Amino acid sequence: MIVVMQQNATGEQIEAVVGRLEKSGFQVHLSRGVERTIIGIIGDRTRLGDMALEAMPGVEKVMPVLQPYKLASRAFHPEDSVVMVGDLAIGGEEIHVMAGPCAVESREQLLEAARQVKAAGATILRGGAFKPRTSPYSFQGLEEEGLKLLAEARELTGLKVVTEVMDVRTLPLVAEYADILQIGARNMQNFFLLREVARVDKPVLLKRGLSCTIEEWLMAAEYIMSGGNHKVILCERGIRTFENYTRNTLDLTAVPVVKYLSHLPVVVDPSHGIGKWRFVPTMARAAVAAGADGLLVEVHPNPAEALCDGPQSLTPENFAHMMKELRGVARAVNRQLAGGVADV
Amino acid sequence: MIVVMQQNATGEQIEAVVGRLEKSGFQVHLSRGVERTIIGIIGDRTRLGDMALEAMPGVEKVMPVLQPYKLASRAFHPEDSVVMVGDLAIGGEEIHVMAGPCAVESREQLLEAARQVKAAGATILRGGAFKPRTSPYSFQGLEEEGLKLLAEARELTGLKVVTEVMDVRTLPLVAEYADILQIGARNMQNFFLLREVARVDKPVLLKRGLSCTIEEWLMAAEYIMSGGNHKVILCERGIRTFENYTRNTLDLTAVPVVKYLSHLPVVVDPSHGIGKWRFVPTMARAAVAAGADGLLVEVHPNPAEALCDGPQSLTPENFAHMMKELRGVARAVNRQLAGGVADV
Amino acid sequence: MIVVMQQNATGEQIEAVVGRLEKSGFQVHLSRGVERTIIGIIGDRTRLGDMALEAMPGVEKVMPVLQPYKLASRAFHPEDSVVMVGDLAIGGEEIHVMAGPCAVESREQLLEAARQVKAAGATILRGGAFKPRTSPYSFQGLEEEGLKLLAEARELTGLKVVTEVMDVRTLPLVAEYADILQIGARNMQNFFLLREVARVDKPVLLKRGLSCTIEEWLMAAEYIMSGGNHKVILCERGIRTFENYTRNTLDLTAVPVVKYLSHLPVVVDPSHGIGKWRFVPTMARAAVAAGADGLLVEVHPNPAEALCDGPQSLTPENFAHMMKELRGVARAVNRQLAGGVADV
Amino acid sequence: MIVVMQQNATGEQIEAVVGRLEKSGFQVHLSRGVERTIIGIIGDRTRLGDMALEAMPGVEKVMPVLQPYKLASRAFHPEDSVVMVGDLAIGGEEIHVMAGPCAVESREQLLEAARQVKAAGATILRGGAFKPRTSPYSFQGLEEEGLKLLAEARELTGLKVVTEVMDVRTLPLVAEYADILQIGARNMQNFFLLREVARVDKPVLLKRGLSCTIEEWLMAAEYIMSGGNHKVILCERGIRTFENYTRNTLDLTAVPVVKYLSHLPVVVDPSHGIGKWRFVPTMARAAVAAGADGLLVEVHPNPAEALCDGPQSLTPENFAHMMKELRGVARAVNRQLAGGVADV
Repeated sequence: MIVVMQQNATGEQIEAVVGRLEKSGFQVHLSRGVERTIIGIIGDRTRLGDMALEAMPGVEKVMPVLQPYKLASRAFHPEDSVVMVGDLAIGGEEIHVMAGPCAVESREQLLEAARQVKAAGATILRGGAFKPRTSPYSFQGLEEEGLKLLAEARELTGLKVVTEVMDVRTLPLVAEYADILQIGARNMQNFFLLREVARVDKPVLLKRGLSCTIEEWLMAAEYIMSGGNHKVILCERGIRTFENYTRNTLDLTAVPVVKYLSHLPVVVDPSHGIGKWRFVPTMARAAVAAGADGLLVEVHPNPAEALCDGPQSLTPENFAHMMKELRGVARAVNRQLAGGVADV
Repeated sequence: MIVVMQQNATGEQIEAVVGRLEKSGFQVHLSRGVERTIIGIIGDRTRLGDMALEAMPGVEKVMPVLQPYKLASRAFHPEDSVVMVGDLAIGGEEIHVMAGPCAVESREQLLEAARQVKAAGATILRGGAFKPRTSPYSFQGLEEEGLKLLAEARELTGLKVVTEVMDVRTLPLVAEYADILQIGARNMQNFFLLREVARVDKPVLLKRGLSCTIEEWLMAAEYIMSGGNHKVILCERGIRTFENYTRNTLDLTAVPVVKYLSHLPVVVDPSHGIGKWRFVPTMARAAVAAGADGLLVEVHPNPAEALCDGPQSLTPENFAHMMKELRGVARAVNRQLAGGVADV
Repeated sequence: MIVVMQQNATGEQIEAVVGRLEKSGFQVHLSRGVERTIIGIIGDRTRLGDMALEAMPGVEKVMPVLQPYKLASRAFHPEDSVVMVGDLAIGGEEIHVMAGPCAVESREQLLEAARQVKAAGATILRGGAFKPRTSPYSFQGLEEEGLKLLAEARELTGLKVVTEVMDVRTLPLVAEYADILQIGARNMQNFFLLREVARVDKPVLLKRGLSCTIEEWLMAAEYIMSGGNHKVILCERGIRTFENYTRNTLDLTAVPVVKYLSHLPVVVDPSHGIGKWRFVPTMARAAVAAGADGLLVEVHPNPAEALCDGPQSLTPENFAHMMKELRGVARAVNRQLAGGVADV
Repeated sequence: MIVVMQQNATGEQIEAVVGRLEKSGFQVHLSRGVERTIIGIIGDRTRLGDMALEAMPGVEKVMPVLQPYKLASRAFHPEDSVVMVGDLAIGGEEIHVMAGPCAVESREQLLEAARQVKAAGATILRGGAFKPRTSPYSFQGLEEEGLKLLAEARELTGLKVVTEVMDVRTLPLVAEYADILQIGARNMQNFFLLREVARVDKPVLLKRGLSCTIEEWLMAAEYIMSGGNHKVILCERGIRTFENYTRNTLDLTAVPVVKYLSHLPVVVDPSHGIGKWRFVPTMARAAVAAGADGLLVEVHPNPAEALCDGPQSLTPENFAHMMKELRGVARAVNRQLAGGVADV
């Protein structure tokens, strides 16, 4: 961390900052420029966050030099982390596609979707039992009944299950049924939930918040990791910008950036990132080319009848077509799609 | 709601949309233009949200005509709502200033802050016992001990207490001590928490999410209101933009806009909106001129020693000075500051 | 400027950076921390911009410590600058209101508008003769004919004239008629235009670009000032964010921030910042409370017939009412409105 | 276009809107819902832009139904447009890579860069002779001397030349030397420049503005096309968001979206979109997978000595490596890279 003093900062003010830092066990490094004095701080960065140095007289600004996260950083763990979901390796050579409906709506709908995405090569079934809906008048999910249907679909198809946990109270219930616990974009900074998820021995799919920086996203991963759970899979799902033709702006550059800054696997959710099914297959291809370790894609047996996010859901036919195209792109970047479908 | 069909939509596709709507009990109104056919929908708008019309063949887009919220809308309740906090009226002629430290740190710190803000004219004490911190290594709050100190400060000063509730499990505890339950920006769309808060008979201060539109903010209020709690106070606290000199961009225009669209009172938090104490008093004045019903301001006996948000906290002296200046601006817009301080 | 080396930077890489800087005449200050080596640079900051230090091996990032502008900075000119427009002082104790139609449409329209805004207390007439329209099919302005009408209105009312210059070729023409040259938001970084305007001896109203930071805005002012024209008036007019109920997000905090960083006067354009006339008077009040030195407000004799920006234009009656209200707010912040209207 | 009346709009107000529209030659279609009356407008949409219907009493809002552009729309020209640059076809099956330094700095630098990018398979040389720099103290380009060097490089290598035109005055000069005229992001809404470029018989590379929506970008293309020049190539180069690790947020979804809405070719500039060379090759691959018709990539013989944008420039080695990788991705999406390099 670096403290930049104001141009007219007095010697006393500079000494006060230095004195406080040294008293707290930091080494300081003073640099007097033509216009400003700069104080470099050497020591444990995680202890600096709580010092309100900017509130001290004569201080102009405090600039962090290092990232605020440790366990999530590439420096801490130079090799790529691979998160095992049963026998599936997320973050290895194979790319895993997680697909299924936005919400579990009925036994028939879910089982049909599960069979269809399995047939096309998905390895993990997605589907929400608890749904975060912006309107209190919208369908809010089947809750425990939905979780049971997900377990039944897993039983029948062999797919693993990823489903969202929205709440500390229902976490034990969701953890009982899910193979991967999904933290939704709106809960990325629900720190109580992050702390609880950290205590569960299950992989966590951590979606990036709608207006969260990459650094904040990695800090949310740090919450989970510092609590004891290192099985974090990051998921880019679009950020909010002024562009409104698409639901969000899919930030694919986040994929190589996160892989540079961190060792955690990254998957991409083009369905939420775009909000219009028409563009999902193309951007799924681009995500694979950008280095994604997996995809999260909404597929519904009949999107026009979906109770949630129909406009961004692929039909099973479009999904199967997309999967075929993905294989070539994966090969072109020296990866391959998981899933037991013959490559035609 | 209006459905815009694609230019080359077939008669069959149009009939399919019309048929589905009529079957669901809506009236439709067909308008065939030169380039497009448009279908107007008449009926209960809250039931339309779950129909994935955009996923039907031939549909180009669906455009909402009405706001998605009802109870929070000005049309539903044409007069301004006044939310009573004990004997204090929020949303009436008087402007209430809620002030205090970001976090409750110690008995001494809190009681000193409480006495100071009371002396300067605040009517409500703010202070966090549970703190949402972006770093897991930062101070996370005194929890129940902090709530007890807030109650003690209330006892001693007569100030009401507003404090954040972060979690459904600790809600009963917080509700026991607080006069106003604060929902933080990061929890604005924590729908489980909103639903629980809706069941408590306490005023709720609902902060706007960092990247939430005004419409989403009012939908979050609708969640609380539709669950039975109409005592919602909205709080503008800055949105996230590309500008990075300030911590956020304080969207003061949201004040008159919300007052036009809704009947709920609105307060402004310039401390979080800006992040630098130096600009807080000026923007507090602007907030009052913009029609705010109150302010939420961070004040710390010694900002440089604050465990949280020191750089945006006012010293008690600066706060007292700000309060004096505010009185004139309040009068100029035909309001007055609450609080028993003689107006010099 | 500070260079942060990568964690695994070699001694050779560090020496290469140091060597290059010293060869270019800078002093360096090396600080070796536990995890990183940091190189502080001392010397003329304006010469650093062109050194691509981030492209050197082993460099992680380069962090600027000082603002990149000089002439526009408060440090360069500690007192507030006052820009004279004839005998009107912009940036002094008096607040000036610049009002009139978006576009000059006809002699009748302009003269009527001029008389009306003058009667209500405006001191400067606004009106576009050249119009930057997002559609090529929209009205593009009366051009020289419009400039002549502005001059006629000035003759008749005594109001000064502010009008936009869009192009280096028409700059001499506009400069012949205008008292203040307006640089529109979309031209804030039209550097050729800035350089030409720098050579004209006329005050320049420099609007903030739709997605420009405060620092970039001050750098645009620096362009004009470094070219020889120090008569720059800054104009906040809203920035682009995800919020879409309003046309833009009016960033009123920019007013005190700019006054802290710079010595230049700042005015506010709530009409473009909001895009809906209904909220303009309230936000004009807030702008004055925030410390604005003036306002730019669209007023049209008949907004519904306006060829440009009717929805954000005030009627003359609403404008007159707004002006009355502004006087009280101005007094409350120890300023006063210019303009010879009796304060009722 | 649809006019939504306020809930309490009177019959007179509705008639006034209808009457005005009919008088202007539009047909209207009235739809009275439970809560609102809606007026559909049928007729020439390009004539509607100038009617300030939102300013009429009783009108709540006006909602456009159709895109405001015509010539640029897919409906106007259902097949993909191919823009010929000499004998190179942009928008056909082959993907063209435009590469070279940010700025032309010297004869040696440019010719070396030209030879290197040609050897790696680029077909078009990029390089700025006039540079839009945010600081007046930065290198501003070699101007005509730079144009001559570009012509020399073309002569020697056979590469076509794309270079930026910043100003109407220097347009004839630039047009004399360039094969493609580049309109920079900051000039995307410089309407005078667009109108002039429309009169030149040269292909135009139109960069998307930093904070411009896709619709505004296509409207800027419409300016050029409606002025007579249909040879427009669109270039996505990143938009401005809150994320600040990267220079901008590269919006790759814009590629398939633009191809759906328009018939114009689209290329991608990952160098400016990201600002850090390290991530450019990966995102170039993603751009090709997203369907881009070409790439614009900064390559410098020695990035650390570059006078402009060194940190985002590839070395010739990295560029050659990227080109090899791109071939496989192109094949995977049934395209191929132009350029005469043997595919190893």
